[in-house]
Amino acid sequence: MSQFIVIEGLEGAGKSTVHAHVVAWLQARGISVVSTREPGGTPLAERMRHLIKEVHDEPLTVEAELLLMYAARVQLVRNRIEPALAADCWVVGDRHDWSSLAYQGGGRGIDSDLIRQIKRAVLGDFAPDLILYLDLDPVVGLARAQIRGELDRIEQEQLSFFERTREVYLSLAKQEPKCRIIDASQDETTVKESVLTALETWFVSLAK
Amino acid sequence: MSQFIVIEGLEGAGKSTVHAHVVAWLQARGISVVSTREPGGTPLAERMRHLIKEVHDEPLTVEAELLLMYAARVQLVRNRIEPALAADCWVVGDRHDWSSLAYQGGGRGIDSDLIRQIKRAVLGDFAPDLILYLDLDPVVGLARAQIRGELDRIEQEQLSFFERTREVYLSLAKQEPKCRIIDASQDETTVKESVLTALETWFVSLAK
Ligand SMILES: Nc1ncnc2c1ncn2[C@@H]1O[C@H](COP(=O)(O)OP(=O)(O)OP(=O)(O)O)[C@@H](O)[C@H]1O
Ligand SMILES: Nc1ncnc2c1ncn2[C@@H]1O[C@H](COP(=O)(O)OP(=O)(O)OP(=O)(O)O)[C@@H](O)[C@H]1O
Ligand SMILES: [Mg+2]
Ligand SMILES: [Mg+2]
Repeated sequence: MSQFIVIEGLEGAGKSTVHAHVVAWLQARGISVVSTREPGGTPLAERMRHLIKEVHDEPLTVEAELLLMYAARVQLVRNRIEPALAADCWVVGDRHDWSSLAYQGGGRGIDSDLIRQIKRAVLGDFAPDLILYLDLDPVVGLARAQIRGELDRIEQEQLSFFERTREVYLSLAKQEPKCRIIDASQDETTVKESVLTALETWFVSLAK
Repeated sequence: MSQFIVIEGLEGAGKSTVHAHVVAWLQARGISVVSTREPGGTPLAERMRHLIKEVHDEPLTVEAELLLMYAARVQLVRNRIEPALAADCWVVGDRHDWSSLAYQGGGRGIDSDLIRQIKRAVLGDFAPDLILYLDLDPVVGLARAQIRGELDRIEQEQLSFFERTREVYLSLAKQEPKCRIIDASQDETTVKESVLTALETWFVSLAK
């Protein structure tokens, strides 16, 4: 049965790097893979992504940011992820719902029950089958991300914002049996090995 | 104390026409008036309006539509309506929260408790001081609106969609002491007189 795998973590944690390894690993096993990234991933969701990421003259309220995140996520789930799963493709997502709990909940301080209410209201109990959480000190992650170039509206936040975000990520990760925590401070080869070992163990357990 | 007056009703009910009369009536009394329309009314909210109104290749899910409506509304309330009220201006709105209850709740069939939850979560108990609801058979309203030109994504809905929308409007209007129901099937002069009489009575009661 097709599966939905999500990679989560702070900026520069190595999500996109790991994403590519996971996709390649699955494809090598003859699995058709659809890649997604959030926010975005459909034409309309990408337009919402722009609204979220751009630096604007008008302040984007934290509430509007949260609602836009979920509007984009609903578009992606209904129009791309669910059809892909129904067509026997596996889906590998660069970010998903935990990003909202971590960034909007932890970083921005929105009540987590409220976020969960909105999530449940618009997406029911749709959830990933496996979450790979790349844990990293935000100082290290932001330094890695900065090399890439200009920072978007969210990346311009204070360090304390990302520290709150990481805390929520960690507490979610520790409570969720479907999650594997990867130490993303290791070098790239070691992170890749940790990820693929976790993936393989999970993959084998699926077949049982 | 500055007040927030909202005009609600189906397409072609005469909201924009009545809006202009209300603004002129207030201005004639020396009141500074800020006009708003929803969805939209700030640069970011107008971009969300485009996403809602345009006809797209990709279907906009009913859930994303609802979230976009509220994202736009939060932007408008926080960045325009509340600052205007704080600066002693009155605000006259062409549509506000009832439009979501009527269109997304009635028309689209989204559970009204869910809509209220989202509303309360992102806007608390922010609410208009006076609502003028222009009640009209959708057949008549759509015929009036059609003269204006091409129909947007929502205006292209079936008649039954607008009948469900009107039903919710009417039930809200009957329960809300802050609402005045105006028979919008009357000719323009009579509608104007009905509106201004209701406005004047309310205005006088404010001073007491
Ligand atoms: N384990 C690692 N050690 C050091 N550098 C790494 C490691 N993994 C990735 N990098 C490098 O760090 C930078 C950010 O990695 P990547 O783009 O994969 O992170 P990301 O989590 O996708 O970031 P963003 O959230 O900003 O998209 C890249 O230049 C990448 O080559
Ligand atoms: N009472 C009335 N009787 C007949 N025609 C009217 C009346 N009021 C307005 N109209 C006309 O009907 C058309 C629609 O009116 P208006 O634009 O004010 O409606 P609206 O509720 O703002 O519509 P929309 O929701 O599409 O913006 C206009 O051409 C207007 O001149
Ligand atoms: Mg990335
Ligand atoms: Mg109008």
